[in-house]
Amino acid sequence: MSVHADSVDLYYWPAIPGRGEYVRLVLEAAGVPYRDVARLPEEKGGGVHAMLAFLQSSERHPAPFAPPVLVESDGTLLWQSALITAHLGEKHGLAPADAPSRLAARAIAMTIADFVDEVHDTHHPLGVSRYYEEQTEAAQERALAFRDERMPKYLGFLERCVTDNPTLSGYLVGDSLTYADLALFQTLEGLAYAFPRRLATLRPDVPAIFALHHRVADDPRLADYLASDRRLPFNEDGLFRAYPELDGD
Amino acid sequence: MSVHADSVDLYYWPAIPGRGEYVRLVLEAAGVPYRDVARLPEEKGGGVHAMLAFLQSSERHPAPFAPPVLVESDGTLLWQSALITAHLGEKHGLAPADAPSRLAARAIAMTIADFVDEVHDTHHPLGVSRYYEEQTEAAQERALAFRDERMPKYLGFLERCVTDNPTLSGYLVGDSLTYADLALFQTLEGLAYAFPRRLATLRPDVPAIFALHHRVADDPRLADYLASDRRLPFNEDGLFRAYPELDGD
Repeated sequence: MSVHADSVDLYYWPAIPGRGEYVRLVLEAAGVPYRDVARLPEEKGGGVHAMLAFLQSSERHPAPFAPPVLVESDGTLLWQSALITAHLGEKHGLAPADAPSRLAARAIAMTIADFVDEVHDTHHPLGVSRYYEEQTEAAQERALAFRDERMPKYLGFLERCVTDNPTLSGYLVGDSLTYADLALFQTLEGLAYAFPRRLATLRPDVPAIFALHHRVADDPRLADYLASDRRLPFNEDGLFRAYPELDGD
Repeated sequence: MSVHADSVDLYYWPAIPGRGEYVRLVLEAAGVPYRDVARLPEEKGGGVHAMLAFLQSSERHPAPFAPPVLVESDGTLLWQSALITAHLGEKHGLAPADAPSRLAARAIAMTIADFVDEVHDTHHPLGVSRYYEEQTEAAQERALAFRDERMPKYLGFLERCVTDNPTLSGYLVGDSLTYADLALFQTLEGLAYAFPRRLATLRPDVPAIFALHHRVADDPRLADYLASDRRLPFNEDGLFRAYPELDGD
């Protein structure tokens, strides 16, 4: 198959935005050509089976733990969404320039990844192997703690990143758009889908991150992508799920 | 206060090994002088209050989200245990030399950090704000899923890292000890404390990581530390807790 010299392969579940979307946003904003392998037709080597066959092949060391997985044209393989986005951002101009700010962006992106893990735990507090419908009571308890304590804590942290940024850029770190800002954008999109009532009550306390969300949504580097069918909608198989019983003021 | 030119400050809760221990092991194995701030006497600027005052001060951008936090002599600040250990390991000779293996070590360490987060969730499935005693039933369900599915999955992944390592070094990645191996060591120590019965039944399936555990325990770079009182024992306030009702074959 003919592939652009700098093209990369992304391996992620094809029917949910999930953690793969954090990687897609960086690829799209940076203008890096990529193949979204599991979403390609089977006759082009795509599909879920092709993805799983690749992930389970023992040709590479180490074999990745879980999607999303990125493979670059030189064979470099990595997984963990916060690591992939940092790697791409630092390579393709979506990261701060100086070393301390690069470390800060990595720490912020990893903290957002933890935040997203906790979103997932609201609908699966007893484990991933059982359906949501089998753990709705525990989910409501976990979701209450998430809305009352964890959402304000994480959003407040991110708000202070923007408001205390010495460059006054309106971004989380440094004076230009980074992969950490893209992760914040996607997380706010997901929270607006999964916890619209709680996000509405918290919004007055965190105006800077909402302003940043709008700025990312309007960034010309993302306009085509966000309007395209490459951008997957949220649904109830993913990380962010619209279960009204888990939301509240 | 007089501080060694290359000394670093570690900020972490003083009474548990927790995620701070992952950082301490790298500092100790690398021979980096450090102050364990919250464990210093108050008259030397230590204690929990000094730690919290530092973490909540707004002098730095970004303010760290949570301990462990590392501050280097040049003022570089970072948090997230997997990021701190990668940074220290790469700087002080406890990381692979080539770029692809460096990325792999980072991904492995981040995957171990996720594993440890799931250990924590076994005793706090409904949220961190409530005591374990208030969520024992949910904890038993979550722990069962953890023992049956997640422990074998993570340990099997780590086993394959060692057995498929093309250098045949017996380490997770590359041909020498890295911070990822130290994280594996600490995680196996914690699992032996929290889930001794389950770890015993899984042990025959993962001999390579147990061999690696022994090798780290015997590494002369760690001998003094592991025998010292700087090495904190596990207890029921930490990540790894010995609750027999959560363990099983």
